[in-house]
Amino acid sequence: MIIVLKPNATTNQVEQLNETLKTYNVEIKRWDGVHSTVIGLLGDTHTVDIEQIGANLAVESVKRVQEPYKLANRKFHPDNTVIKVGDATFGDGSLTIIAGPCSVETEAQIVEVAERVKAAGAKMLRGGAFKPRTSPYSFQGLRADGLKLLLKAKEETGLPIITEIMSSSHIDLFEDVDIIQVGARNMQNFELLKELGKTNKPILLKRGLANTIDETLMSAEYIMAEGNLNVILCERGIRTFETSTRNTLDISAIPMFKMLSHLPVVIDPSHAAGIPQLVEPLSMASIGAGADGLMIEVHNCPSKALSDGAQSLDPDTFDGIASRIIKAHDQGFSYRYNV
Amino acid sequence: MIIVLKPNATTNQVEQLNETLKTYNVEIKRWDGVHSTVIGLLGDTHTVDIEQIGANLAVESVKRVQEPYKLANRKFHPDNTVIKVGDATFGDGSLTIIAGPCSVETEAQIVEVAERVKAAGAKMLRGGAFKPRTSPYSFQGLRADGLKLLLKAKEETGLPIITEIMSSSHIDLFEDVDIIQVGARNMQNFELLKELGKTNKPILLKRGLANTIDETLMSAEYIMAEGNLNVILCERGIRTFETSTRNTLDISAIPMFKMLSHLPVVIDPSHAAGIPQLVEPLSMASIGAGADGLMIEVHNCPSKALSDGAQSLDPDTFDGIASRIIKAHDQGFSYRYNV
Amino acid sequence: MIIVLKPNATTNQVEQLNETLKTYNVEIKRWDGVHSTVIGLLGDTHTVDIEQIGANLAVESVKRVQEPYKLANRKFHPDNTVIKVGDATFGDGSLTIIAGPCSVETEAQIVEVAERVKAAGAKMLRGGAFKPRTSPYSFQGLRADGLKLLLKAKEETGLPIITEIMSSSHIDLFEDVDIIQVGARNMQNFELLKELGKTNKPILLKRGLANTIDETLMSAEYIMAEGNLNVILCERGIRTFETSTRNTLDISAIPMFKMLSHLPVVIDPSHAAGIPQLVEPLSMASIGAGADGLMIEVHNCPSKALSDGAQSLDPDTFDGIASRIIKAHDQGFSYRYNV
Amino acid sequence: MIIVLKPNATTNQVEQLNETLKTYNVEIKRWDGVHSTVIGLLGDTHTVDIEQIGANLAVESVKRVQEPYKLANRKFHPDNTVIKVGDATFGDGSLTIIAGPCSVETEAQIVEVAERVKAAGAKMLRGGAFKPRTSPYSFQGLRADGLKLLLKAKEETGLPIITEIMSSSHIDLFEDVDIIQVGARNMQNFELLKELGKTNKPILLKRGLANTIDETLMSAEYIMAEGNLNVILCERGIRTFETSTRNTLDISAIPMFKMLSHLPVVIDPSHAAGIPQLVEPLSMASIGAGADGLMIEVHNCPSKALSDGAQSLDPDTFDGIASRIIKAHDQGFSYRYNV
Repeated sequence: MIIVLKPNATTNQVEQLNETLKTYNVEIKRWDGVHSTVIGLLGDTHTVDIEQIGANLAVESVKRVQEPYKLANRKFHPDNTVIKVGDATFGDGSLTIIAGPCSVETEAQIVEVAERVKAAGAKMLRGGAFKPRTSPYSFQGLRADGLKLLLKAKEETGLPIITEIMSSSHIDLFEDVDIIQVGARNMQNFELLKELGKTNKPILLKRGLANTIDETLMSAEYIMAEGNLNVILCERGIRTFETSTRNTLDISAIPMFKMLSHLPVVIDPSHAAGIPQLVEPLSMASIGAGADGLMIEVHNCPSKALSDGAQSLDPDTFDGIASRIIKAHDQGFSYRYNV
Repeated sequence: MIIVLKPNATTNQVEQLNETLKTYNVEIKRWDGVHSTVIGLLGDTHTVDIEQIGANLAVESVKRVQEPYKLANRKFHPDNTVIKVGDATFGDGSLTIIAGPCSVETEAQIVEVAERVKAAGAKMLRGGAFKPRTSPYSFQGLRADGLKLLLKAKEETGLPIITEIMSSSHIDLFEDVDIIQVGARNMQNFELLKELGKTNKPILLKRGLANTIDETLMSAEYIMAEGNLNVILCERGIRTFETSTRNTLDISAIPMFKMLSHLPVVIDPSHAAGIPQLVEPLSMASIGAGADGLMIEVHNCPSKALSDGAQSLDPDTFDGIASRIIKAHDQGFSYRYNV
Repeated sequence: MIIVLKPNATTNQVEQLNETLKTYNVEIKRWDGVHSTVIGLLGDTHTVDIEQIGANLAVESVKRVQEPYKLANRKFHPDNTVIKVGDATFGDGSLTIIAGPCSVETEAQIVEVAERVKAAGAKMLRGGAFKPRTSPYSFQGLRADGLKLLLKAKEETGLPIITEIMSSSHIDLFEDVDIIQVGARNMQNFELLKELGKTNKPILLKRGLANTIDETLMSAEYIMAEGNLNVILCERGIRTFETSTRNTLDISAIPMFKMLSHLPVVIDPSHAAGIPQLVEPLSMASIGAGADGLMIEVHNCPSKALSDGAQSLDPDTFDGIASRIIKAHDQGFSYRYNV
Repeated sequence: MIIVLKPNATTNQVEQLNETLKTYNVEIKRWDGVHSTVIGLLGDTHTVDIEQIGANLAVESVKRVQEPYKLANRKFHPDNTVIKVGDATFGDGSLTIIAGPCSVETEAQIVEVAERVKAAGAKMLRGGAFKPRTSPYSFQGLRADGLKLLLKAKEETGLPIITEIMSSSHIDLFEDVDIIQVGARNMQNFELLKELGKTNKPILLKRGLANTIDETLMSAEYIMAEGNLNVILCERGIRTFETSTRNTLDISAIPMFKMLSHLPVVIDPSHAAGIPQLVEPLSMASIGAGADGLMIEVHNCPSKALSDGAQSLDPDTFDGIASRIIKAHDQGFSYRYNV
């Protein structure tokens, strides 16, 4: 951490800063220039509160040299983290497709979709039971009943399941869920992250609509700091000024996450674009950039879906897309991060 | 709601759309042009799921004519909502200043700050007990103990208190809190909003970093739909490309919220800018634009603050700022929304 | 175009609107609902000024059903536009790599880079002569002399050249340049676009940092409306809140441009990320999504480059990347837009 | 400037960096820590090319301590720059209102508007002759003829005039214009800025839609570096994710520009919001925050305006707004920057 002092800092202010710095277990170096003074903190600075340092009246600016996350940091964990759930594996170089409807609606619907996506090559079933909807008047999901229907579909097809949690008070209901998803809107629901860190379930953490790469890794760190190291990062589009797509898929998040962290990276092209015709080109782009997995919305009747139908694929279209994506990946079309 | 059909929509698809539309309690009008067909939905369309309509294969585009919120909508509630807590009033044309530290740290600290801000003209005390911090290694607040210290300061000074909630499982702890704050990161934590809607506490709802005006009003609607109509909207800066300020204060949110809704509007210039020198000009701007209140960070020793010290004012500086702002407002410098 | 009237519009205001509408050569349809009135304009509405309509006091909202660009619109020109310059072809399904330094510096430098990138498989040489730099104190390019050095490198290697123009007063200097580039900062320099529309040179139009897909196509339309139909669209990253990459590559721009327009699409992964290690994964992503070309910065000595060295590749690294990208494209890993 | 070296930088790379640094006229300080090395550059670093430094393979990160602009920097010019044109003064603490139509249309129109806005208290007339329009099919302005009409209105009313330039080839036409405006889309049209720097006309420089505070000051520096020190900065809204207003007025730009620079600051509430009802509250906010001037669109018949009518005020409405704004400023409701 590099601290630049104000040219007119008083001895008193600098003294006070020194007191603060001594409370951290780091080595302190000082370099006096003609017009300015620079202080360097060496050692493990991830516990140093950069805002507190910046508040000192003597300080002109502070800058981290080291990333503020540790457990999620590839520097301290060079090998890829591999997460395995049934036949679905994330992080070992394979491509794992997760597919299913936005919302679980009926047993017939979820079982049919599960069978279709399994046949098409998906290794995991997605489906929303608790649904975060912008409007309180929109369908809010079948909630606990939806979880039961998902488990039914798992029983029928053998596909492991992933579904979103919206409150730490629901954790017990997720006991038989294979991967718990934290949605974009809850990426900085820190109380929820802490509770999930105490479970032993793999967590798929979606990047928030306006959260940086660094903040996403800090949210992963929240989960990991409580003991649960099984975190999968998911890019699903960020909010920008562009309105022709629902969000803007930040494809650079794949190489950035891969370089900075050892955690697997999954892309959700359905929510990123909100346009079914973009699912295939964005999926191809994602495997080209080295994604470990894809999460794609498939509904047996998109126009009757109770939520997000507009962006869902029907099973027939998904068949074609999945086969082309899997073939491309099998033939070696995937950037590999040899760190 | 205006629905434009695709030029090549099949009779079958249109039939299916009609079925969907009939499930809503609205009047359906159809207008056949030469090249395209437009359907209008009349009546109360706030329960119509725009995404579901858009998913129909016959639909080219859908557009709301009416806002999707109802209880928060000024059209259905022309008079300003006025919320009164002790001597603090929001929405009646007065200017109410809320002040206090980012985090509650010790009894001495919070009582001293409370006394100082009261003397300076603040009508309400703020202070964080549960703190949402980007890093799990940063100070997380005194939590339940912090709430006790806030109540102590209330007892000493008579100032009503406001503090942030981070989980619905903590609601019981907030029984003696006067206004419960929902932070920007939890603005779309819908499970929390629903639970708060079941209480009778006034809620100060902060706009999320990347949430639109409309989404903020929809989150207010979540609380109101459960029966709690006492919602105060708070603009605290949005995330943009600009990096010289921490966030970008969206000053236009004041007139937009005032025109679209009847709820009071509070501005938080401290978090919006992250720079103490900006608190006064942004406060003056806010009253000029007609804000009902200001929420300002004051710490008795900013450089020793356990969080967000960099943006806090010391009590002496706050004295001057508060007196100038209050004087300007008293002299009539405030835009009035005569709807 | 769909116009929704205000519920309280006066007869007079509606009359005035009708007068305005009659000045356009379109069919006017009117549909009176119980609470609101909708007017539809049918026919070729691309000359209708949507802002002028919106300014009428009777109008609640206006919405285009049809895109406001015509010559660039795939609806009116279903086949891909193919642009051929020497051995470089854009738009016929091939992958064309453009490579070279940010700035032309010396004859030795540009000739050496040209030879190296040609050997690696590039079909076109890029190099900046006129350089748009944020600071007036940074190197501004060799200007006219730089163009001469580029022509020298073309002579030596046979590679066609592309370089950026910054003012319409320089057009004569670009007579022997093969493709003229319009930089992101000049994407809405409409006077320049009009002048370029009067030449017969292919134009590579870079999307502005904060410009939408639609605005980019409207800028292409400016050039095309003057008679020059040879426009190549280039996505080079947009400005968002994310700071870990210089800009955010909007990979969805590829399918959006391809669906909305018939013009070729080139991606510039060097400027988009500003990080050399991201060039390969972003290039792979781009061909996966179906880009027609890539524009990559290569410098014989990045750390001595007079501009943008930080993001340039050295020729050895480029050799490896180019061979892997070309191989992947040859193997068919490229999304095809069969419109 | 602070340069942090990579832990694994080779002697060779560091040597090369030292060579580069020696070419700048600055003092070089080096500080060797246990795990990392920091180099500081002291003295006048505004000519140091930060990108070139960052491209060196030895460099982990580079950071400016000093701003990269010099002539526009308040540190080197503590007093406010005051620009006076006729009765209009910018920067001396007065509030100067510029008003007029988006486009000049006819002599009758511009003279009538000029008379009305003068009577209402405006000190300067605005009006577009050369119009930057997104669509080539929209009205492009009367161009040279529009300038003549503006001069006619100046003759009739005595109001000085301001109008936008779109190409350096038009500079001669602007000889009798009092202030030349550079529009948001041309803020980084560096060739134009350089040419304007060679004139002796005051320049009103509009911030680009996606340009930072720092970039805006660098564009001012382009003009000033050529000898023309009469630059007025204008904030007119930036592009964000919010869609309820056309752009987002960055009110914090007022205090930031005022603290960092000595140049006058004008706000354009009409373009910032695109909504006539927001002009008054945003104007009040602007004077509260200490703006030196306001630029407001007024049209004698907004619904018949050939451009941007939707956001224009009619003269009667402007009368009321101007009188209230001027009164508020006269009463002292304006933040003063006592630097």
